[in-house]
This record gives sequence, C-alpha cells and structure tokens, in this order.
Amino acid sequence: MASRASIKLVFLGTGGSYPIPERNVSSIALKVDSEVLLFDCGEGTQRQLMSSSLSFMKVDKVFLTHLHGDHILGLSGLLQSMNMNDREKAVEIFGPRDTGRVLKDIIFKGYFRPGFPVHITELQPSARLDFGDFSVTAIKADHNVPTLAYLFEERDKKGRFNKKKALDMGVPEGPLFSKIHRGESITIADKVIGPDEIVGPPRRGKKVFYSGDTKPCNEIIEAAFRSDVLIHDSTLDASLSDAALRHHHSTAKMAAEVARKAEVDRLYLFHISPRYKDLDLLEEQAKEIFETSKVPDDLSEYSL
Amino acid sequence: MASRASIKLVFLGTGGSYPIPERNVSSIALKVDSEVLLFDCGEGTQRQLMSSSLSFMKVDKVFLTHLHGDHILGLSGLLQSMNMNDREKAVEIFGPRDTGRVLKDIIFKGYFRPGFPVHITELQPSARLDFGDFSVTAIKADHNVPTLAYLFEERDKKGRFNKKKALDMGVPEGPLFSKIHRGESITIADKVIGPDEIVGPPRRGKKVFYSGDTKPCNEIIEAAFRSDVLIHDSTLDASLSDAALRHHHSTAKMAAEVARKAEVDRLYLFHISPRYKDLDLLEEQAKEIFETSKVPDDLSEYSL
Repeated sequence: MASRASIKLVFLGTGGSYPIPERNVSSIALKVDSEVLLFDCGEGTQRQLMSSSLSFMKVDKVFLTHLHGDHILGLSGLLQSMNMNDREKAVEIFGPRDTGRVLKDIIFKGYFRPGFPVHITELQPSARLDFGDFSVTAIKADHNVPTLAYLFEERDKKGRFNKKKALDMGVPEGPLFSKIHRGESITIADKVIGPDEIVGPPRRGKKVFYSGDTKPCNEIIEAAFRSDVLIHDSTLDASLSDAALRHHHSTAKMAAEVARKAEVDRLYLFHISPRYKDLDLLEEQAKEIFETSKVPDDLSEYSL
Repeated sequence: MASRASIKLVFLGTGGSYPIPERNVSSIALKVDSEVLLFDCGEGTQRQLMSSSLSFMKVDKVFLTHLHGDHILGLSGLLQSMNMNDREKAVEIFGPRDTGRVLKDIIFKGYFRPGFPVHITELQPSARLDFGDFSVTAIKADHNVPTLAYLFEERDKKGRFNKKKALDMGVPEGPLFSKIHRGESITIADKVIGPDEIVGPPRRGKKVFYSGDTKPCNEIIEAAFRSDVLIHDSTLDASLSDAALRHHHSTAKMAAEVARKAEVDRLYLFHISPRYKDLDLLEEQAKEIFETSKVPDDLSEYSL
C-alpha cells in the first residue's frame, strides 16, 4: 500500500544572466520525499537553499542544463560548504557535453579537495536516468551552446486499495491484500475476486519539465506533453521577440505557446531578464495564451 | 585647493567559511571618491554590491587576501556581469602567491572570455602599490595558506587654505594662492608672507587596515598602528580560543587586543563563524578589551 511520494517544487533563483537584489540567478529544486534534486546552480544558490525550507546537505543530484555562468557558478561554493559540514555521501552531477572538463577546472582548483565523491556524468539528449521511484530524461533544447532540458517523471503508482470493500467481501487482512493490490485475482469461498473490484485505476506519477535556456522547440513540446508543471525560459517580453530568438531565448508569450501546445497543467515563467522589476507585463502576456501561467517569486514553494 | 576625498566603507559580507541567510561571506568595499576598491570577493558579492549604494561597474581594483573559496568564488560572476554590461575598462586583481594560476582556472574556463582586460598581479608581503591619491600595502598575515592583509592609506593632504586671511593680507586671488598653498613664501608690497600665516598644518590621510583571515600577529599590529579603522578576523568567541588558533583564526577578544596594541580608532569584527546568530557575545567580549569595537551588519556603511 505504497503511499504517494511528497513532491515539492522550490524556486531558488528565477532570474537570468545576472542577479539583481530582487531575484537570484537560475536554480530550481525538487524535493522528492527527503531527497533534493537541484536543476542548475547559479552563483548564490547555497544561500538561497539556506533561506528556503530545504537542507543544502540533502542535495544528492544536480542536473545542469548548460555551462553558462548563471547556471553553474554556485556549484563550487555548495560543494565546499557540504565539505565543511562533514558530508560523506557522494554528489552526482549530470550535464551536457563538456561538463566534466569545465567543472573540473572550476570546482577542484585552488586549495579545495572534497572529502566525499563527486561524480560527473555527461548526458546525450534522450538519455533516461532511472532512479527507482522516479526518472529524469535529458531532452535536447535549442540554446546557443549545448543545452539539455530535463523531464522529471515520478513512477506511476498502483491504484487505491479499498480496504473496507475488501473486508466486506470477506478478504482477510494479510498477504491476500498485497496479492490483489499487485493485480492478481484471488479466490475466497470458491468465489473469484478480480483486482478491479477492490483496487482503483493506476495513478499517473507527476511530471515536471524544466526547459533551461532555450528558444521554443518541438522536442520540448513533445517531451513536456501533459506535464503537471512546465518551467520554461521566459527571458523577455513580446516586444523583444527578435532579440529573444537571436540569443536563443524565449519570450513569455512563446513560453505560453509551448505550454498550450504541450497541454500542460501549469506554466511557470523563468529566467527573467534583470531588466524587469515589474513582472505583471510578462505574466499578462503569457496568460493571454495560457491561463495558468505564473512568474514565481524567488523562494516560493509549490506542492505537487 | 584640493578637497578631501570622500571615503566610505561598506561591509558587503562579514561572515566566514560559508554563508548563512543573515550574513554573506567575505567582501569589503572602500569607495574612494567615485572608485570602488574591493577587498576579497566571496560567492554572492556581486548581488551584495547590487543591494548596496555602490555600483558593481565601478570596481576597478580587487585585493584578495588568500585563495580560500569564501574569499574568491564571487570573482567569476562579478566579471561576467561586468561583461554583460559592456565593460571596457580593465580590472586589476591583486593577491598572494598562486593567485594567477588559481584565478585563471576559476575565471576563464567554460565559455566565458571577458571583453575587457583583467590583470592579475601577485604581491609579496610589504609590496606597496601607489595609486596617487592613495596607496595599498600588502602585509604578511598568519593564516594556514599564503595570506596577505592590506593597509589602505590616503595620501596626506595640504593644510587648509585661509582664503579670507590671504585676501585681508593683500594676496590677490590667482597663481600666488597656489604658490603659498604649496608651501612657498611670497612677497607682497615688500612684505614677505610665509605659508604658515595662511595655510594650516598638513592633514593626515585616512588609514584603513583589513586583516583578512589571520591569527593575531605582530606584523599586523605594527602595520595597522594608529589606523582610523581596523577590520580584523574575529571568527570565534573567547571560549573557543584553542580552535581559533589551531585554524589560524582569531577570537573577538584577540582582535580587540590587536586593536588596543595598534592604538587604532575603531575596530570592526569580521569573518564571523556561521555558528553565531546572536552577535552580542562577540561584541561584548571585544569591548571588554577595546571599547570602540563593533560587529557590523552586512550592507552597513560608514563614512570616514
């Protein structure tokens, strides 16, 4: 009777390019039960983690979309702080081509040597990492350097077990409960009881799609299809569409079009340019296309 | 009639080792007229600058005490943000031995190449850099890696020129004003007028001493002698003296003893361990030895 995982989305940094007092650079955390998955890790991410409800020591896996500074420069400090707090458990870092070379230069120079293993894995587009209760799949994004988007998928869960009905039908509590929950039929007093009489339909696991920096692209629309949450590049407003595309970024409106085509439940606009202090403009432009659009504040948290 | 420079001290980050929500890691700025000198540049310093009254684009000179992460990991992001804001002017970085090798690895890897010159100079202890209106001298500190403390010295200024008295004595406004202000005698209607009749005594320039990470040492007491401001390592409280010395740091009490021996005007306690949320303990222990001691808050500013 496995219970549903608790999944929490925390926006650690929602700004693009460079930080401003109101917004830090890119980092998004997904808390899955007690583990924290980090997607990108711009400068200052460790302090954002410390200012959130999450523990920076619980970060075991980091997924980098690409190797621009505003997405990676917080890694070194995060690892050093873990080290000062006696971490022993390995940290797994995933990213696109060149991640190993670039991170080795940035992280392990100077006097710092971590007292715990740091594993760096370069992923090809479409690589799917199966972690048991969830998986993460790398998707090719369209930015001006090698860039991956990421699809987080919780494993589908068994249907709800109707304990009262099982007892009413004469099924004794014990191994037969598990058997029928697994989808097998059982026989009680010469009567065959099928699992669909007691167990509801399987429950689809949650899907969260994170685009990183990208202009709108079909690979993302396809891979994000019917996600619960899409977090999409929304660097500029619609009046700057040409500039957005020239720099391989998206406008809020473009992000909303991706959300609409991908039929997602919710869109969070992300990687906001430092030029915007008032975010209403971006949110309004997205909502014209896709109603459930939002610019999240830094440190805002959402349960899935 | 050179006017006195405006000097402002801004504590960008007063914490040691790693950041906490209440305090960022090490960085201190001195604004001298319109220029900003940065002493150390821990992760997140650019965002602290952006949250202060200073402009991060006005930082032309950075002085690193040593190459531990909490003092240097903000450099890369700062330079990248300058680049995104079309900086053309060179940035000069000074630090102890190994600064060139370590910074080249940390700053110039990945895809980033600055569009402006970045000059890195390794300093030997006692090296004095003369910048005209002020100088900065590197002083050997006592930490567990090569570490320099820094003495900022404003150039002594000419005495105040008493314009009213000059006119009353018949000196016409013009070149003779400059001549007498330079210290030369002049003759008006066969009467010799000496400079001390019109010009006050020379005014001593301000002195600010920044210790970086260090245990108490005589080099610092001597070099900081009669500074207006001493900013000194104060990582731990007096109950942890052994640990402080073992890690080549100081307690608040040790910092206060240095301040007393150096006969400085004011002591700012700095590089506070993340373990302290309440800072009264450190300030009280210092004040028992040296009355004008203070733990500054992050982003606090003081005019000299």
